[in-house]
Amino acid sequence: MQGSVPVQLGKNCAIDAGVLLGYRTGRPIEQKPVVIGDNAQIRAGSVIYSSVEIGNGFETGHGVIIREGNRIGDDCAIWNHTTVDYECVIGSRVKIHCNVYVAQYTTIEDDVFLAPGVSIANDPHPLCTKCMQGPTIKSGARIGVGAILLPHIVIGENALVGAGAVVTKDVPPRAVVVGSPARVVRHVDDLECQFEIVKPYVDGLDVRRRPEWTTVAALARPVMRPASHERANLSKRPTDKEK
Amino acid sequence: MQGSVPVQLGKNCAIDAGVLLGYRTGRPIEQKPVVIGDNAQIRAGSVIYSSVEIGNGFETGHGVIIREGNRIGDDCAIWNHTTVDYECVIGSRVKIHCNVYVAQYTTIEDDVFLAPGVSIANDPHPLCTKCMQGPTIKSGARIGVGAILLPHIVIGENALVGAGAVVTKDVPPRAVVVGSPARVVRHVDDLECQFEIVKPYVDGLDVRRRPEWTTVAALARPVMRPASHERANLSKRPTDKEK
Amino acid sequence: MQGSVPVQLGKNCAIDAGVLLGYRTGRPIEQKPVVIGDNAQIRAGSVIYSSVEIGNGFETGHGVIIREGNRIGDDCAIWNHTTVDYECVIGSRVKIHCNVYVAQYTTIEDDVFLAPGVSIANDPHPLCTKCMQGPTIKSGARIGVGAILLPHIVIGENALVGAGAVVTKDVPPRAVVVGSPARVVRHVDDLECQFEIVKPYVDGLDVRRRPEWTTVAALARPVMRPASHERANLSKRPTDKEK
Repeated sequence: MQGSVPVQLGKNCAIDAGVLLGYRTGRPIEQKPVVIGDNAQIRAGSVIYSSVEIGNGFETGHGVIIREGNRIGDDCAIWNHTTVDYECVIGSRVKIHCNVYVAQYTTIEDDVFLAPGVSIANDPHPLCTKCMQGPTIKSGARIGVGAILLPHIVIGENALVGAGAVVTKDVPPRAVVVGSPARVVRHVDDLECQFEIVKPYVDGLDVRRRPEWTTVAALARPVMRPASHERANLSKRPTDKEK
Repeated sequence: MQGSVPVQLGKNCAIDAGVLLGYRTGRPIEQKPVVIGDNAQIRAGSVIYSSVEIGNGFETGHGVIIREGNRIGDDCAIWNHTTVDYECVIGSRVKIHCNVYVAQYTTIEDDVFLAPGVSIANDPHPLCTKCMQGPTIKSGARIGVGAILLPHIVIGENALVGAGAVVTKDVPPRAVVVGSPARVVRHVDDLECQFEIVKPYVDGLDVRRRPEWTTVAALARPVMRPASHERANLSKRPTDKEK
Repeated sequence: MQGSVPVQLGKNCAIDAGVLLGYRTGRPIEQKPVVIGDNAQIRAGSVIYSSVEIGNGFETGHGVIIREGNRIGDDCAIWNHTTVDYECVIGSRVKIHCNVYVAQYTTIEDDVFLAPGVSIANDPHPLCTKCMQGPTIKSGARIGVGAILLPHIVIGENALVGAGAVVTKDVPPRAVVVGSPARVVRHVDDLECQFEIVKPYVDGLDVRRRPEWTTVAALARPVMRPASHERANLSKRPTDKEK
């Protein structure tokens, strides 16, 4: 590593030992300082490259790699072993889960959720960089576990991409898409909570921010499904009472 | 990082430099000590959070993240860059491979195998935490490379989930499922080894633990398939004789 | 960690602090030195096990794990949080992107590209190691984002595996395959650049190495697709002018 660029941290940031801030890219570009807002928490194993600007309330898991030239808004969280490749634009209140890859030149608007294992592409014909561009994921869209997004597409506002979907073309706002290639199967306003606890997509809002829901007592664990649910048959562990 | 909780290690444990044990979660919960049994081997880059209890013979690769409140049995192995999210229950002799994500409130019974790249979901409508619960994976089930498991489902005993399957509902015991969404295509007892070396699923046991199989000499590499197999055409490497 | 094996580094190598070279495997095999050629750049968090031989111009991202017994040619790059499991043979000018898993006994020829999130399997019936062998990926083949390759198959020269494909059998040279299970849908010579910038697969070469293309000016960002493309509606970020 050839030294690092200057880093400007806001107030009340918690940076674990071993985190690398301002890591220099090997690309032949200007390497600007890193600017991170207040109240950041960046966990061990994470690396933030040069020329990155991040708002307040940023939180990472472990092994999060933020490449150079990214701009990230306020109150975002990015979890373990996710890479955000260079020159993306990410809004506020975005949550990106574990083992995700966000390709260069991807745009992610406010309140987007990327579930674990999502992979995003930006090269219509791999290895050519001439028309490389990631998708645009509009406000409030939620991308399910292990979904794959192809280059240049637009995921509409508050759309829901099902787990494992391979999305090859634009998704209309508030559409639910599933499958490979992904097709529209529903509208988010038609979704219902199978436990009748919440209305999942009222106004496309994050249910965690609706006070009337966050005050509902959590279900007892394990949650029992309508269908019968066999009891787990686990071997004795050293923490069992009889130890 | 705000200090760590106490850690109780068994005999003969090998913990690499840089491993973090007893890492405090940011969640507002009680942070209990970490208890790990005998003969653990935990490799560089791994992090184990507070309130985790693990049996004997635990082994990890690099960058394995075990979140708070997990209970793990004996003789388990978890490989590189896998995250086990909080409050899961995992039996004994479970092997979880690389780049896997295990969602909160997942139950994994004894002798389960999760192949590389498996992703597990727990939120029927993402971002709502009210009915979050991972699947239950029953004893001896094997989940193939890159498979995706949806919330609340039960994978039956000794079932086999094919590579890349997207499993949206319960899988019967000893069923083989493939596709997206996954459908039953076979019974594990009908599977045959294409090389006629072993009976793959006798009694649902791990063939590695059957002495009559483990004493069979390994095949010469490369294994030749019944169909013709072109020879690899590799460029000269610095290790070639002519160097 | 039980000490490390000797490491022989070429000229002009840049090894980040915290990188582990010559890490000893727990497998009961002979542990030979690590040999790495000139001009290597190995980034923080990466681990290279014993008995690995790598040519000149090797570059890694962060958290790259190269297990024991791998042989890798010249000018290869492997990106963040990818694991190359033991005893693979990899040619020259191979690029393996982030979050990839390469199974034991996989053969990857020259000029192959593995996109982010690719997972490779080598066990026709999981947990049995008797006929474990990864696929053979022939020269110039390109494997798309999140694709899954099953054991023992051969991906033909210059073939293109589409994003999210689950490849269960051999792929002919220069074929384009998509879906689960993957089927041939086209020939790479029929592919066209939607922006009419390049001919994507002329001679199967990496377009980046064709001087007449690399001198073409990059498109303005964002690249506008033929269809209309809504403008991103991002919240104000601390880097906006009005700050």
